[in-house]
Amino acid sequence: MVSVEPKPVNVGFVLFPGFQALDAFGPLDALNILSTKTKINLSILAATLDPVSTRLPADQQNPFGSNCAQSVVPTHTFANAPDLDVLFIPGGVGRREPDTVDQVSKLLVGLYPSLQSVITICTGAAIAAIAGILDGKKATTNKKSWSLVTPLGPKTHWVANARWVHDGKVWTGAGVSAGIDVTLAWIEEVWGEDMATDVTTVMEYNRAKDPSQDPFAPVYSITDVINGEVQPS
Amino acid sequence: MVSVEPKPVNVGFVLFPGFQALDAFGPLDALNILSTKTKINLSILAATLDPVSTRLPADQQNPFGSNCAQSVVPTHTFANAPDLDVLFIPGGVGRREPDTVDQVSKLLVGLYPSLQSVITICTGAAIAAIAGILDGKKATTNKKSWSLVTPLGPKTHWVANARWVHDGKVWTGAGVSAGIDVTLAWIEEVWGEDMATDVTTVMEYNRAKDPSQDPFAPVYSITDVINGEVQPS
Repeated sequence: MVSVEPKPVNVGFVLFPGFQALDAFGPLDALNILSTKTKINLSILAATLDPVSTRLPADQQNPFGSNCAQSVVPTHTFANAPDLDVLFIPGGVGRREPDTVDQVSKLLVGLYPSLQSVITICTGAAIAAIAGILDGKKATTNKKSWSLVTPLGPKTHWVANARWVHDGKVWTGAGVSAGIDVTLAWIEEVWGEDMATDVTTVMEYNRAKDPSQDPFAPVYSITDVINGEVQPS
Repeated sequence: MVSVEPKPVNVGFVLFPGFQALDAFGPLDALNILSTKTKINLSILAATLDPVSTRLPADQQNPFGSNCAQSVVPTHTFANAPDLDVLFIPGGVGRREPDTVDQVSKLLVGLYPSLQSVITICTGAAIAAIAGILDGKKATTNKKSWSLVTPLGPKTHWVANARWVHDGKVWTGAGVSAGIDVTLAWIEEVWGEDMATDVTTVMEYNRAKDPSQDPFAPVYSITDVINGEVQPS
């Protein structure tokens, strides 16, 4: 059943220093393929137009002396965001930086009333929680960071056994790779199952179709958190 | 069994205009996580130091008028590549561009003798085939592009039912998402199963552990191609 009208066209994707690479590029790859099958205009939003690194400046020396990061070029600043139908927010170590929390939550609060959908991936849900848009909603987030993120949404029912959660116009994906699944679920909701299957097949992705089928909640021994109360297992 | 010594440290990742986003950022996310657990230095190699787009200039107008692409900043030019232990080559529509074929195959031929491993993702195998490094080897590639890529390696046994193939120092992944699986398989070979599981769990990725378990060969009705001969199904 395809019922979402009008179809979204203008998609914004938030980046900030220390974003998780696959949180962004799983959904973005799906959007790139989708854009060859229907009209999609993508805006990549960041604090400035400077390339945004997956690494925080403070992380440049890690315990092993590694030097491993990628930088992506934004198309718009937060201050200059175009009209958007959908906003994606990834997670990553940078989601805790005060400037990022402040800038992205303000952006989200400002855009939220006019958005058709908000899609968070991984710890991107932390920023949505801080912005208040998860209040009264079911949501999920990265499973490794469960105990850090869930307290940020004390009016939220955090679902542990979830690859993603869809509640109203808010979609929240679990950690990292789950961003692909939540994006494909959103594509299916908007454009129908055939479109989602087409995109999945081009990606050669072993898609999770059941949002409650999540192998990682047991790995991290987490349970639902409802309005701040950790539920028994 | 962990037997690869010395461990690779210096990893190169090739980008070219029209690379497939997830071909790159699935493996890159795994490398980013790996780099917090062992020493990894990443070089992003391209023809110039200008940001490299997932879109070809010629593709800027698609049938739907979409505007959807991402640009990534290289760290080194092909002409200025540092010493490398491992080289990754993604695929994407741009892998057919004559300049890219010429530049990347020359890079690969030049580096190959001193590399520990070459890892291609998706149609990145086409460039490896043209460079001749798949001669006499088993390999796989993107399943949608099977009939376009396999003729480029007329001395190769192309394995249809493969999520990835490992033959000597060459690893070839199937399409797009399979880049994550081939990268995790390589991590397991080099650093052991626990390391691969750690990285997989942080990524919350439903990893394919059996390289012969590939759901997409049947979707595209493809069969092995051995030295240019398409095998019966």
